[in-house]
Amino acid sequence: MFQTVRGMRDFLPEKMKVKQFIEGTCRKAFEKYGFSPLQTPVVEEYATLSTKAGAGEEIKREIYYFKDQGERELGLRFDLTVPLARVVASNPELAKPFKRYQIGTVYRYDRPQAGRYREFTQADIDTVGTDSILADFECIAITAEIMQKLELNFFIRINNRILLEDIAGLAGIPEKMIPEAFRSIDKLDKIDWQGVEKELLEKKIDKKILSFIKDNDLADIEKMFKENKIESKGLNELKQLLELIKEQKLEKFIKIDLSLARGLEYYTGNVFEVMAESQWTVCAGGRYDNLVKALGGRETPAVGISFGVDRLTDILFEKKETESIAKIYLIPVNKELALNALSIAQKIRELEINVEMDLTGKGISKNLTYASKKKIPFTVIIGEDELKNNEIKLKNMKTGKESAVKLNELSKLKELIV
Amino acid sequence: MFQTVRGMRDFLPEKMKVKQFIEGTCRKAFEKYGFSPLQTPVVEEYATLSTKAGAGEEIKREIYYFKDQGERELGLRFDLTVPLARVVASNPELAKPFKRYQIGTVYRYDRPQAGRYREFTQADIDTVGTDSILADFECIAITAEIMQKLELNFFIRINNRILLEDIAGLAGIPEKMIPEAFRSIDKLDKIDWQGVEKELLEKKIDKKILSFIKDNDLADIEKMFKENKIESKGLNELKQLLELIKEQKLEKFIKIDLSLARGLEYYTGNVFEVMAESQWTVCAGGRYDNLVKALGGRETPAVGISFGVDRLTDILFEKKETESIAKIYLIPVNKELALNALSIAQKIRELEINVEMDLTGKGISKNLTYASKKKIPFTVIIGEDELKNNEIKLKNMKTGKESAVKLNELSKLKELIV
Repeated sequence: MFQTVRGMRDFLPEKMKVKQFIEGTCRKAFEKYGFSPLQTPVVEEYATLSTKAGAGEEIKREIYYFKDQGERELGLRFDLTVPLARVVASNPELAKPFKRYQIGTVYRYDRPQAGRYREFTQADIDTVGTDSILADFECIAITAEIMQKLELNFFIRINNRILLEDIAGLAGIPEKMIPEAFRSIDKLDKIDWQGVEKELLEKKIDKKILSFIKDNDLADIEKMFKENKIESKGLNELKQLLELIKEQKLEKFIKIDLSLARGLEYYTGNVFEVMAESQWTVCAGGRYDNLVKALGGRETPAVGISFGVDRLTDILFEKKETESIAKIYLIPVNKELALNALSIAQKIRELEINVEMDLTGKGISKNLTYASKKKIPFTVIIGEDELKNNEIKLKNMKTGKESAVKLNELSKLKELIV
Repeated sequence: MFQTVRGMRDFLPEKMKVKQFIEGTCRKAFEKYGFSPLQTPVVEEYATLSTKAGAGEEIKREIYYFKDQGERELGLRFDLTVPLARVVASNPELAKPFKRYQIGTVYRYDRPQAGRYREFTQADIDTVGTDSILADFECIAITAEIMQKLELNFFIRINNRILLEDIAGLAGIPEKMIPEAFRSIDKLDKIDWQGVEKELLEKKIDKKILSFIKDNDLADIEKMFKENKIESKGLNELKQLLELIKEQKLEKFIKIDLSLARGLEYYTGNVFEVMAESQWTVCAGGRYDNLVKALGGRETPAVGISFGVDRLTDILFEKKETESIAKIYLIPVNKELALNALSIAQKIRELEINVEMDLTGKGISKNLTYASKKKIPFTVIIGEDELKNNEIKLKNMKTGKESAVKLNELSKLKELIV
């Protein structure tokens, strides 16, 4: 028996309906803010993939890397941001700011584990070509809109990478050790404060940074900066963003978290991370101003956020009853009436109602079992009597209630099936 | 400068909007007939991919084949039918008939040429688990609906593989030579009747088959079969399908074409091919009853059709003006009014209207250029006067007409922007 590739999975219809609902919700919210769709290939040149700041040869082990028959070095994309940066770098004519969204699968050669797959779907928005914090704010507003539409409990952790660097400086960490310090701090979710402290100790990094980010709020930090005459661009960016958030009454969804470092080293400003149902990171992003240049374009500021559609799907699938695709299931009582049933089905479809009909000529009871397995909410049995009376009887499968509808008044179905 | 991988392409927003329109049109038509969505991974085990009837080792040269770091033999899927058959074979609990659609990218290591890409999108429906010709008919009806919604000229060529085999038998071609004969006949699009005749001659196959399929209509064939006492299952299937098509008044879109062989050897019944704008094959399919079994499942009849979304996109992109994503573009006259503009933008978005606003603080004329480049149909300039009057002025960019709307009556925008 053939299987899916290790670490990858099928979305069978019940789950795929949830996934499509999430993708549709994302798309609608993205478009409401004027983001336009983009599609890029799943396969990219290895040279493109390896350019992301901080990624070197070792990335070969984390991605699907291969050569085609022409010995070209290729790989499956591991995110949607690198392809976006390539698009921007090689299409300088695109009007800026370039606001695009992309929903697509990405690939990582990770160790497969619960909730982690080697193929998964991201839904990304990015605004490329402006350093305005309004663009950062749009990421937050769209996130809040989507998470509310999905009816999930959530909060958005916010921090700023430059602010964190300035705090690290104030805590006496030498500049070249800062990335190492962040790599440890970034593990707070997994190894807690003691664990991070131990790592810093091993790396011979002053652990003072930990109390700085743990025991202070933004006002404390601002005060410390003032006392030490530190002008922090990062602090200003974060404060600007918070002002917009308050102004638009979204602060109830926000947690300032000075410990949020975000693993990838290319972030250069505000960073975000979204927690759903108090335990799942479902979305993350931030400002990254160097990536387009690294891919051969001009210096271009950018900010974006990426939704983990797979994880959202798994969460929502547990919470939400899915609706069937077909609203009505038609059953001809015998094969001779299949043509009549088909004509009726076609007339109902003309009303933009989704209809499935029995194709097989199986018996009524088997058909009802099938309809109930597929959770189709209404059935219509078509027999000689109904045809003689020029009507159909719509049966609500939940309540058992039947409603007769004349064939020349089928548009009444629209109200009956809501 | 980094490029897309050879033979693959980006869909920039202008074209991607057309592609999404086509995908949405397909999805809606598929669901109207009760097909449910499925998603399978882009990467499949090589063993799965090489199982398709007729495909052997040589398929390695036609696909993206590679090994992962665990030395697993993998490949990128070259169609959506093999993954479907794998899903059906390994999930026997799925209610039958299993009607699914899938829209996704597939990969072929072809020589790239105009209109042919190494990554392209297919939109497929398949009904698995019934040999009813009603399922064949649904493929035809859905095709007609989609092509009409896309406002494309089209016709559907129809034939039956078993009928063609029976004609070949009548024309004296030995059974084991029939696949070779079909391979030549399948080239009729490319090398015309003379070319095919020459090929048959080289293969020492009686060319009589050509006049049989060229000079006869279905009635002639039926008569010949009767005279020769041939019971043709294929002829019956095709006649049944035609009866349904006539009954539902779709015959104006149909051309019976006895020369239609369809390259892939796994078709076992009715076959279809859709021509758009008199020159492009945009869609093809048919009945294939052996694939699921080949992938380890039970004997399972199936029929399906696959839309070439890329080609449809290219055709429609030439014919159709696209609409902008944002319907309204907001321009604050200076940076100090950005917050006011943002509040207004958010209120309009609450009405489910797509709004883009200036994020950059650039001047009015640059903003108008941007809006016009993005073809946004309405603009609103927000200045002190408007704010004092608690109103905005909506400007139609085509007609130049301005309409004042009070801030507490923003829902009036809904009528103004249609």
